[in-house]
Amino acid sequence: MTNNFKTPSQSLTVMNELVLPNDTNTLNNLMGGKLLHWMDIVAAIAAQKHSGKTAVTASVDSVSFGKCIKLGDVVTLEAKVSRAFNSSMEIHITVWAENIPSGDKFKSNEAYYTFVAIDRNGSPIPVPELKPETEDEIKKYDGALRRRQLRLILAGKMKPDDATELKALFFQ
Amino acid sequence: MTNNFKTPSQSLTVMNELVLPNDTNTLNNLMGGKLLHWMDIVAAIAAQKHSGKTAVTASVDSVSFGKCIKLGDVVTLEAKVSRAFNSSMEIHITVWAENIPSGDKFKSNEAYYTFVAIDRNGSPIPVPELKPETEDEIKKYDGALRRRQLRLILAGKMKPDDATELKALFFQ
Amino acid sequence: MTNNFKTPSQSLTVMNELVLPNDTNTLNNLMGGKLLHWMDIVAAIAAQKHSGKTAVTASVDSVSFGKCIKLGDVVTLEAKVSRAFNSSMEIHITVWAENIPSGDKFKSNEAYYTFVAIDRNGSPIPVPELKPETEDEIKKYDGALRRRQLRLILAGKMKPDDATELKALFFQ
Amino acid sequence: MTNNFKTPSQSLTVMNELVLPNDTNTLNNLMGGKLLHWMDIVAAIAAQKHSGKTAVTASVDSVSFGKCIKLGDVVTLEAKVSRAFNSSMEIHITVWAENIPSGDKFKSNEAYYTFVAIDRNGSPIPVPELKPETEDEIKKYDGALRRRQLRLILAGKMKPDDATELKALFFQ
Amino acid sequence: MTNNFKTPSQSLTVMNELVLPNDTNTLNNLMGGKLLHWMDIVAAIAAQKHSGKTAVTASVDSVSFGKCIKLGDVVTLEAKVSRAFNSSMEIHITVWAENIPSGDKFKSNEAYYTFVAIDRNGSPIPVPELKPETEDEIKKYDGALRRRQLRLILAGKMKPDDATELKALFFQ
Amino acid sequence: MTNNFKTPSQSLTVMNELVLPNDTNTLNNLMGGKLLHWMDIVAAIAAQKHSGKTAVTASVDSVSFGKCIKLGDVVTLEAKVSRAFNSSMEIHITVWAENIPSGDKFKSNEAYYTFVAIDRNGSPIPVPELKPETEDEIKKYDGALRRRQLRLILAGKMKPDDATELKALFFQ
Repeated sequence: MTNNFKTPSQSLTVMNELVLPNDTNTLNNLMGGKLLHWMDIVAAIAAQKHSGKTAVTASVDSVSFGKCIKLGDVVTLEAKVSRAFNSSMEIHITVWAENIPSGDKFKSNEAYYTFVAIDRNGSPIPVPELKPETEDEIKKYDGALRRRQLRLILAGKMKPDDATELKALFFQ
Repeated sequence: MTNNFKTPSQSLTVMNELVLPNDTNTLNNLMGGKLLHWMDIVAAIAAQKHSGKTAVTASVDSVSFGKCIKLGDVVTLEAKVSRAFNSSMEIHITVWAENIPSGDKFKSNEAYYTFVAIDRNGSPIPVPELKPETEDEIKKYDGALRRRQLRLILAGKMKPDDATELKALFFQ
Repeated sequence: MTNNFKTPSQSLTVMNELVLPNDTNTLNNLMGGKLLHWMDIVAAIAAQKHSGKTAVTASVDSVSFGKCIKLGDVVTLEAKVSRAFNSSMEIHITVWAENIPSGDKFKSNEAYYTFVAIDRNGSPIPVPELKPETEDEIKKYDGALRRRQLRLILAGKMKPDDATELKALFFQ
Repeated sequence: MTNNFKTPSQSLTVMNELVLPNDTNTLNNLMGGKLLHWMDIVAAIAAQKHSGKTAVTASVDSVSFGKCIKLGDVVTLEAKVSRAFNSSMEIHITVWAENIPSGDKFKSNEAYYTFVAIDRNGSPIPVPELKPETEDEIKKYDGALRRRQLRLILAGKMKPDDATELKALFFQ
Repeated sequence: MTNNFKTPSQSLTVMNELVLPNDTNTLNNLMGGKLLHWMDIVAAIAAQKHSGKTAVTASVDSVSFGKCIKLGDVVTLEAKVSRAFNSSMEIHITVWAENIPSGDKFKSNEAYYTFVAIDRNGSPIPVPELKPETEDEIKKYDGALRRRQLRLILAGKMKPDDATELKALFFQ
Repeated sequence: MTNNFKTPSQSLTVMNELVLPNDTNTLNNLMGGKLLHWMDIVAAIAAQKHSGKTAVTASVDSVSFGKCIKLGDVVTLEAKVSRAFNSSMEIHITVWAENIPSGDKFKSNEAYYTFVAIDRNGSPIPVPELKPETEDEIKKYDGALRRRQLRLILAGKMKPDDATELKALFFQ
């Protein structure tokens, strides 16, 4: 698969959503689960753009929610592939919220979702490699190995002792 | 707040959902984001039952998805509080999927969501302590400190060196 | 079909729903039709569990709604098969509503839905018999004949004079 | 409240709905619960038209479903008030289904829903009397007393012996 | 295709919708896009009734929105075919809004949508001619040529100079 | 209001949507009304960004739909303000559709929506002027007067003879 690669900007996907009543709890705050759902959709589109295939969610890394997003706010989600591995892709997502009439705008959170490209029978198929370009893209690309080790440990598929990349970061 | 505690079974919440067309991608697989949304709702109800208050999602730990859940499957979600800390609650969720006509049933995944109880002004308020009863509940209760340290490290709010509980588990 | 039976507890299905804005009228009360829809879904899952087949709604018995259920309340629905007849199943559903912050909890209503198990061509197929176990299950099982006669009369498919079971109950 | 009445045609409400994928089960049949939901909405509008007030569902009489309605069919619902009692209104609903490309059209079912008019505090308030005009409207108006007695008996609020209207019909 | 025609009343379609929270913006006004969506559905049903075929939206003429429609209002849409051309149909839609408790009722807007009848492969197929009956139907039928020329000019498919019908109306 | 202006790029809003089953008709084509709804949402966000206020739809210019958009396609909508008039804003929207697995991508359509900025009482309030920058933005800005005259004529609020801008374009 020589020369088969794509850049992060080729998978860049932007989504804007208005927070509607059914997306909120009784205090008019956007429910976390709805945001996780939107993050999954924007990441799925980015994964499709990179792979040119249907892609299914394999995992979501831990996400923390800060300041509440309110009814009527505009939520902007931006996703791009941060690294590709054989048939899977790690997608980085950033979420902003903006209350336009009040001028209040803030970064709500960031997350990594992992997707697997599949063929019509549901079997995994190879995806292009990722060639990061900007400094930030290279940093995310390099960190992907550590995040992958953490995922494998948390899913019980790797022993902590084998996570050499992770160890180097967490416990120097 | 002496004597103010609840058991995990007091917050037990069960939810069954049918996978409908709009919940699936073009290969008729349940989208990961929809499942994360349902997990958030069942966990929010469990958090409300424990705290007697409105509760908002503070974080979701990493979740991995295995075998695909299909259109028409019945998804069963079960949530209960695994530990309470001042105003926050960690909720453990288990998800099963069942294709009734084919008799195919499997555990899809497990996850931990964290919620914060808030008053009408959106400020955090104390919640009852959790008193685990079964062996499994005690094990989850004990593991909650490690998971909390991992969350704080991943959110950049704790240095790896200070995560004594986590270190003990990951790198003996 | 000897030995082919199931107990009511094998079809027990529990569903929890949060009342969201779109489920309510302008006074913030849950609309009756939405509740009838949820009752249909929980009953359909119970009918599937009993029959191991796809099942379609054949009828709903009269339902009365009492105290209003409000926006933000948690609605708990519990369904199990109360009797099986050849290819149809009568499902008993109980609905509770709970406003967690106020501690207000009440039984909203009960109902019987009837489902028919069908094969891939839409033709009715036999279902297992029901073997009631508890006192309450036996009582519901016994009452099913009378309810069935009432359904047939109301649908214009039986003459009142032939409804011997029903007569015995209503007009001793 | 002399001279305060309305005719059935003043509350006539017609609704057409297209059966979309999320309204159907895995065999592409409209789910019964979704139809009950639409019937509730069309009846609620008719009740509002008659009373000039917000109206909430008090009960639904037994409904039976015949031939399956399919994905893509057009469902036509027609509702009008069949009798008014103090603050409650009985609404008669007829449902047709039509598959336009195939030319297949049939009456799916009929039902009676009862609504109560309420003020802004949720308390029942009087509604205009109904003055039936056509032969069919008069017949439905006359039958309303019997249906009301049946509802009260089924809800456990009337003894069968007191249901004189009902007795006359069912067991001459 | 001699004798193959239908009258406008044969395609008449009425739809009533309740404005629910998710249909509104933060000021509780019905969003214009939601109304355009409902207008498309009612027109699609009318086009199906006229053609006896599946029909897809080809264009919508300019629509202006006047007075705001509010949460809880009843929206009534009425559609009928105003002219048929080979495989396309122009549909006229009128929209009323009514706030029943306040007695406020007004005509919200009118619009023309154009649909094309298609076969199972998505190719256009001929539709019956329209035979207008009332004075208003004849007027709309006659105006259809001018509206069609305007559509073709606005879509860049006709030069203004060739729009003889339109010229006659706009610039005598 | 000297110095109070914004550029088109300050209101640029991008939205990506996946075509889900409920958005399609029985031939798996995206329904025109759903697309009009999405166009309204993306335009409403752009209008909010320009005005810093809540904005409501005042009109939509004629839109024609070409090639069908299919289930599973990614729809990309891009909106920016093309001209501001006192309290109203004209928004230009471009829509692309892409079927990623097949590599098929095409421009679906373009449209102009007009929004009015309103205060908390629903009264129109002034918005910043628009200062177009690119050649294309200047061309759209200049054409806005003609489109506005056409809208006024079509809404019956201007006589064709007074539409000097429009005449110059259409009938030189």
